[in-house]
Amino acid sequence: MRSIYCGQVTSSNVEQTVTLCGWVHRRRDLGGLIFIDMRDREGIVQVFFDPDKPEAFALASELRNEFCIRVTGVVRARPESQINKDMATGEIEVFAHGLEIINRAEPLPLDFNQTNTEEQRLKYRYLDLRRPEMAASLKTRARITSFVRRYMDEHGFLDIETPMLTKATPEGARDYLVPSRVHKGKFYALPQSPQLFKQLLMMSGFDRYYQIVKCFRDEDLRADRQPEFTQIDVETSFLNAEQVRELMENLIRGLWQNTIGVDLGQFPIMTFDEAMRRYGSDKPDLRNPMEMVDVADLLKEVAFAVFAGPANDPKGRVAALRVPSGAQLSRKQIDEYTQFVAIYGAKGLAWMKVNQAANGLEGVQSPVAKFLTDDIVREILARTGAQDGDIIFFGADSKKVVCDAIGALRLKLARDLDLVENCWKPLWVVDFPMFEEDGEGGVTAMHHPFTAPKDFTPAQLEADPLAAYANAYDMVINGYEVGGGSVRIHRGDMQQAVFRTIGISEADQKEKFGFLLDALKFGTPPHAGLAFGLDRLTMLLTGTDNIRDVIAFPKTTAAACLMTDAPSFANQQQLSELAIQTTVKADE
Amino acid sequence: MRSIYCGQVTSSNVEQTVTLCGWVHRRRDLGGLIFIDMRDREGIVQVFFDPDKPEAFALASELRNEFCIRVTGVVRARPESQINKDMATGEIEVFAHGLEIINRAEPLPLDFNQTNTEEQRLKYRYLDLRRPEMAASLKTRARITSFVRRYMDEHGFLDIETPMLTKATPEGARDYLVPSRVHKGKFYALPQSPQLFKQLLMMSGFDRYYQIVKCFRDEDLRADRQPEFTQIDVETSFLNAEQVRELMENLIRGLWQNTIGVDLGQFPIMTFDEAMRRYGSDKPDLRNPMEMVDVADLLKEVAFAVFAGPANDPKGRVAALRVPSGAQLSRKQIDEYTQFVAIYGAKGLAWMKVNQAANGLEGVQSPVAKFLTDDIVREILARTGAQDGDIIFFGADSKKVVCDAIGALRLKLARDLDLVENCWKPLWVVDFPMFEEDGEGGVTAMHHPFTAPKDFTPAQLEADPLAAYANAYDMVINGYEVGGGSVRIHRGDMQQAVFRTIGISEADQKEKFGFLLDALKFGTPPHAGLAFGLDRLTMLLTGTDNIRDVIAFPKTTAAACLMTDAPSFANQQQLSELAIQTTVKADE
Repeated sequence: MRSIYCGQVTSSNVEQTVTLCGWVHRRRDLGGLIFIDMRDREGIVQVFFDPDKPEAFALASELRNEFCIRVTGVVRARPESQINKDMATGEIEVFAHGLEIINRAEPLPLDFNQTNTEEQRLKYRYLDLRRPEMAASLKTRARITSFVRRYMDEHGFLDIETPMLTKATPEGARDYLVPSRVHKGKFYALPQSPQLFKQLLMMSGFDRYYQIVKCFRDEDLRADRQPEFTQIDVETSFLNAEQVRELMENLIRGLWQNTIGVDLGQFPIMTFDEAMRRYGSDKPDLRNPMEMVDVADLLKEVAFAVFAGPANDPKGRVAALRVPSGAQLSRKQIDEYTQFVAIYGAKGLAWMKVNQAANGLEGVQSPVAKFLTDDIVREILARTGAQDGDIIFFGADSKKVVCDAIGALRLKLARDLDLVENCWKPLWVVDFPMFEEDGEGGVTAMHHPFTAPKDFTPAQLEADPLAAYANAYDMVINGYEVGGGSVRIHRGDMQQAVFRTIGISEADQKEKFGFLLDALKFGTPPHAGLAFGLDRLTMLLTGTDNIRDVIAFPKTTAAACLMTDAPSFANQQQLSELAIQTTVKADE
Repeated sequence: MRSIYCGQVTSSNVEQTVTLCGWVHRRRDLGGLIFIDMRDREGIVQVFFDPDKPEAFALASELRNEFCIRVTGVVRARPESQINKDMATGEIEVFAHGLEIINRAEPLPLDFNQTNTEEQRLKYRYLDLRRPEMAASLKTRARITSFVRRYMDEHGFLDIETPMLTKATPEGARDYLVPSRVHKGKFYALPQSPQLFKQLLMMSGFDRYYQIVKCFRDEDLRADRQPEFTQIDVETSFLNAEQVRELMENLIRGLWQNTIGVDLGQFPIMTFDEAMRRYGSDKPDLRNPMEMVDVADLLKEVAFAVFAGPANDPKGRVAALRVPSGAQLSRKQIDEYTQFVAIYGAKGLAWMKVNQAANGLEGVQSPVAKFLTDDIVREILARTGAQDGDIIFFGADSKKVVCDAIGALRLKLARDLDLVENCWKPLWVVDFPMFEEDGEGGVTAMHHPFTAPKDFTPAQLEADPLAAYANAYDMVINGYEVGGGSVRIHRGDMQQAVFRTIGISEADQKEKFGFLLDALKFGTPPHAGLAFGLDRLTMLLTGTDNIRDVIAFPKTTAAACLMTDAPSFANQQQLSELAIQTTVKADE
């Protein structure tokens, strides 16, 4: 029905007759003419109707926003004065001689010229998606998946589908359950990831697998989470961690180049321990110039228990964070930051304003100055690289509280003081601990229990689990974990050692992971993989921090679809067939 | 860890040192040497160990089937006498000087050298997938999706994801339900197809959409159905049915060319009515040379009520099916076919053996001959094109019973008598009826209720629904419906007319389809689309009639996964959180 997309008409089409299909984006009546900004998925072009073509002009006078129309006309160069350099089609306009109103539109419940509430946008999602920003976002997402697929194809990865109706998975989040009609009383689970299936595909010998796949977690949603999300899921055999990282780093570098023309360069590699030490985070935002500096060794002897306690505790930490030009912060602002770190368990927030760094103790202003010597202050100033006009904050508590609190403070201060560089800072974080304490005397797997330890035998692992490092790696870009993976366990004895370490009984091992332990008996190859969050990558590449802007039909943070009104009530017959009933009373 | 895949070592590598990773496919000890067929995903290569390399030889003597190994060796041309033309690597062998046993294997529960039960194959799927046939099948599937994606990309289609947790869909099959934890008492449904979402994407202006997407139907499974299946889902705006068919026909033609090097040629187009008349089926297998021929007009006056009744009934049909060389069929065989057509409701199966066609009534043998005149017999022989030695079967009943029974008989006879040509016969079937009688005085939509009628106004449609044809089309290849689609309704008045016609009340329209009826108010473009069954396409292209051979981890016909043992019991805490309980007693 069309000869060209609206957004693709350019000077090269001048004097050609074109036929366009699309929507009335805006109408203006000016100097006896009717001007229409006509929109389709490729963009907007200006169309005008002249009374000289009376039939088309009469019909054009009926046009309202969002009418679906078909226009035939001749492309003309705009007069010099009317050229719009901001529009791809800004050098031309279409003089319409034919118009067909394909479908009329009632006045819209959304106003494209102002900000609509997100509730309205989600209820009328099919209209919200007409906005050029949203259309561009989903087009970018399609370009991303297309690029990823081509890369994976070219590198010998096979796209293999894994089941959606499966068994409860071990990722640890809550599963979505699906009652079985055939096996009454039993349930499928929707996958939290295809982790075990992709490992089994390696055991089957497929060597390189990928899939762009929906995953599900029934968790309370934060702003950047959705109950269903999309993973770029990858697994390889006979490659080590370095080789997997290289393949995946090249993919992401290519993706940035292809999508936004940016060269991410080589990704630095940082251990988990170093990331926690310098940034208090395992996904450090390296655009933020501030770093934490350890000062416990200086403070073991001070007569200030808040410092001396953690400084002498092997599980404690005392760290300083220098804030460039932070001495400008008011008492009130410092109090607010003190409240902020309390969220993360910090019981206070010591600070030191640097007036004249060269003067040591004399040159600083701090409520804790009285506990410190000139030598200590000079060493703190030296280690943090403090300049006149800076402020230094101190975290002193357990390692965890200091990392969490000062790590979060670091991010908040950078935002508040506009210290974040406008650039891309990718990195790999590697060598995560295998396990972390679960707070009940046991340990849990920090990644998942199929992750291989680095240079540990099963016996060593069981003897001192907290000393073990995992051969795991996360890709972090600008403070967001965009992907993560690991070398997997490919021997049954190691897998059982890990299961035992995290307290899974023999019986549970058999019931939940019997097929995996069986499979490990038959010549499993060494294998390693990774998964990227597609939603997150798309958010970064489209510059949004709202995950719903990169998903066509997202759910609210209450996991509802405002457009279709899902979830909804089921009828009694359906439930009877499934042999379930709800425990919600009718009047609730 | 490897330098080349086993299956890719050829004469061009002779004298090169290669490193291979893979599995022991078979071991033979011969003339003091150890020969290993070593397998990876690309194929099998022969490796041999000589006692001259004592270390590798000693280790090789430990090798058993399915050990995972790494071999380093030199590629050598095989002696002329040992060249195996059936193997891609049959001209060479690898003289191993290094061997590493990466992982040992216990004796397998499957024997690759004989047929295993499907139950065993599904339980040990990770081993079954090691069989070269299964690996090839999944590799073909990956090639198919890759080709489809490239084609769709090149033709401006955007890959856009639609939700998995959604509202009960209207396709008519039973939904899989997912209880909501947040909205207790409510349920999501897994999609039977993204039908409404893709239509909404057209309303949003995306113009061309595609997705390769999992869909779900909780139906009792036949051998060729799975509870979750994969659809190549397509929708376009501003294209008519012919244009959509052309785009999709080119896709499938390209796919056959790319996958198996076959040119499918131009697809003939046949109306539903013609297909039913000639083949008694809306998915005719055109490789089968037999056709049904109508003979009711000849039999209106005969003194045989079985023929005369349907011949005089406007809803009846009398059809003849000529079976080439079928006169050889014994009485017993004919009796068996009579029992076969009874499954489809036929009350008998009249037949006529053609001994000497030129002799008319005198030249045939038939229990019903006594009711027929020479003129009638001659006309039947002429219409069916009967030759000496043929048999003609007759169906006389309601149109439906005749089409079903003789249509099924046509397929069975072709199989039994080996009449199916070995070739590819695609076609389009078009112009389906909009509605069919539901047997309770009402009508139901034959495709789905979003299909547009052909040249009917809403008023005409409501006045005589059974006279309306749908602007729908199915793609049929070798008797299998591989895809189907339609032009969709893009006006609210027509959509409501269809809903009313199939008996959906105003209240139900609003509750179930309110968002669609709303969306139709805002300038909906004309749109049309189609969906292919990826599993079915892959079955055709890999030559299997077992759907489980083209799915990595399929379910049984009882919708269970024998490997992971899904579905399984949920614990009480999970169910409580979801506010449901099962109605199955503990002791059941």
